[in-house]
Amino acid sequence: MRAIFLIISIFLISGCSDVDESSASAPIAAQTENYEWKMVTTWPKNYPGLGLGAENFAKKVEAMSAGRLKIKVFGAGQLVPAFEVFDAVSQGTAEMGHGAAYYWTGKSKAAAFFTAIPFGLNAQEMSSWIHHGGGLELWRELYDEFNLIPFSAGNTGVQMTGWFNKEIKSIEDIKGLRMRTPGLGGDVITRAGGIAVTISGGELYTAMQTGVIDALEWVGPYNDLAFGFHQIAKYYYYPGWSEPGPALELIINKDAYQTLPDDLKAIIESAARAVNQDVLDEYTARNNEALVTLVEEHGVELKKLPDDVVKELRRISDEIIQEIAEDSEIAGRIASSIKAFQKQAAAYHAISEEAYYEARSQ
Amino acid sequence: MRAIFLIISIFLISGCSDVDESSASAPIAAQTENYEWKMVTTWPKNYPGLGLGAENFAKKVEAMSAGRLKIKVFGAGQLVPAFEVFDAVSQGTAEMGHGAAYYWTGKSKAAAFFTAIPFGLNAQEMSSWIHHGGGLELWRELYDEFNLIPFSAGNTGVQMTGWFNKEIKSIEDIKGLRMRTPGLGGDVITRAGGIAVTISGGELYTAMQTGVIDALEWVGPYNDLAFGFHQIAKYYYYPGWSEPGPALELIINKDAYQTLPDDLKAIIESAARAVNQDVLDEYTARNNEALVTLVEEHGVELKKLPDDVVKELRRISDEIIQEIAEDSEIAGRIASSIKAFQKQAAAYHAISEEAYYEARSQ
Repeated sequence: MRAIFLIISIFLISGCSDVDESSASAPIAAQTENYEWKMVTTWPKNYPGLGLGAENFAKKVEAMSAGRLKIKVFGAGQLVPAFEVFDAVSQGTAEMGHGAAYYWTGKSKAAAFFTAIPFGLNAQEMSSWIHHGGGLELWRELYDEFNLIPFSAGNTGVQMTGWFNKEIKSIEDIKGLRMRTPGLGGDVITRAGGIAVTISGGELYTAMQTGVIDALEWVGPYNDLAFGFHQIAKYYYYPGWSEPGPALELIINKDAYQTLPDDLKAIIESAARAVNQDVLDEYTARNNEALVTLVEEHGVELKKLPDDVVKELRRISDEIIQEIAEDSEIAGRIASSIKAFQKQAAAYHAISEEAYYEARSQ
Repeated sequence: MRAIFLIISIFLISGCSDVDESSASAPIAAQTENYEWKMVTTWPKNYPGLGLGAENFAKKVEAMSAGRLKIKVFGAGQLVPAFEVFDAVSQGTAEMGHGAAYYWTGKSKAAAFFTAIPFGLNAQEMSSWIHHGGGLELWRELYDEFNLIPFSAGNTGVQMTGWFNKEIKSIEDIKGLRMRTPGLGGDVITRAGGIAVTISGGELYTAMQTGVIDALEWVGPYNDLAFGFHQIAKYYYYPGWSEPGPALELIINKDAYQTLPDDLKAIIESAARAVNQDVLDEYTARNNEALVTLVEEHGVELKKLPDDVVKELRRISDEIIQEIAEDSEIAGRIASSIKAFQKQAAAYHAISEEAYYEARSQ
């Protein structure tokens, strides 16, 4: 019979709790504190991929903590509007949020770097940069003044260029186009002569239908079919130059986080990593069947952006990234870190992932 | 002040424990049982990527469980030899193992499908097939008769073709070549006229140095530099046709697993998912710097396999996969599942990942 060491620590709680931290060598301290947290999101409740990622995160945390940390997930607009998630978590209205960093460029221009940069890292590279290339440390430094701790918690993989009702034959066709596309991709569209608009996902269909926008970029086939964009747009363009591997973010109010015992902090960290890959796995499994439905059942025309348009967008992208890098000291460090990482990852991917795609399709 | 419900359940243990399962709505039951488990691995202790993945898994589980589940990790040969990991876990000598399914084709030919198939899924697709395409269910069905529960717990990304001391100019150059390459890649080499050998990583350098083998495939630059293969081989070939996205496996003795309470089971599941991506992140961040060292400091010649060799290897691969699919009913179902998944994932990746790599390099 194994000996059981049991220490029960019960704390009186008044606002913040002061909880026991068991070390690896000490007898086990049974953590008895319960937490009930709120998570606000920028997505419709239970939305495929994005919203399910948030729900699955909450489920994993509850199961791993045996119910000690319960997280109630709110869709966009249920507790706060989509674009108030950052402030709500920063101020403690909710303890957690799930969204994308590029929605918060009004707080800091460099935030966009933690979702995606045009012609930047794809999903595999982005996760690697964040977790093994210094990205997460920079992200935490950037969000520190907002009382937030960020985690990477999902990725959609390469997105599409988006939905259009006119053909894009040259860069001239971007001029005057009112297009929903957030983050740095939006800045590029604006500099190319278009008018970039940031609208949350749930409002996109109506915006396009009523002519508020002429074109839109959302995610990819799996999500775009769910929103029904094929009913209001004719052409579906690739490749996803503006969002090649956008990371979704989990943000946690720092004060709330610090009240947690170490095991719950570890549970949050691993749940975020698990969801980070699981969301990408879901998109990878679902995108093509949705694309087939869009093209074969709904008559959507799949089109590739002309090479010279891609080149011009690339030129403008590099220009804009350089400007943001010069905007603040930390933005400069983040841009340098991504650039150096991309240089080496792309060099290896040229003989691994790229060369393999080529070999497989021979 | 928040009310604290506290139920302490102490169980007398005799071999198996019968543990309390707290439901989401019930008051929290503090789990007080401690577990000390052994994990045997097919890798050298603390080996980059592969071995670190096993160590990190154990650390995550210990942190998340506040020390209730401690896992001691053994390198290859420390408790059992590399290729006895499967039997050791199956029989309960150790509760857990970390390795790769294609080492166990002596138990079931179909096991190789759960590491990699030549010209098959890359890392992103493999994780998606396992977790959102029915792969995990098939894997668990296959391993059930061995008293094992498998999890995906790491991926190296696209590997290299491997190390050679003679140039491969045509398929004729494979003839008579004694090459270390396990799994289905090995079967292909044998049918192409070579002699495939399976040797564990730690024994490879000596085998090549002493002429037991003429060529070898191990992983990629990050790992291959660590083993020093540049000292005993001249040419380093790509692309990694035989292992485009090999999954590492965590196996757990079923009887041991069933003694765990639900929260520890959930912790294991998320830790495996977290490590599944983290290992890939590590390779993605480290491969290129190692490749640069190999080429620039050690004078290794990086070479691309000729297209007609790739085509012939592809032809043989398809033939062998078809034969294994006909070997048993379950092998047939696994092969069909992978084939259907690959067809759709590759179709979408043609306009997403592939098209993006092309756009980025313009």
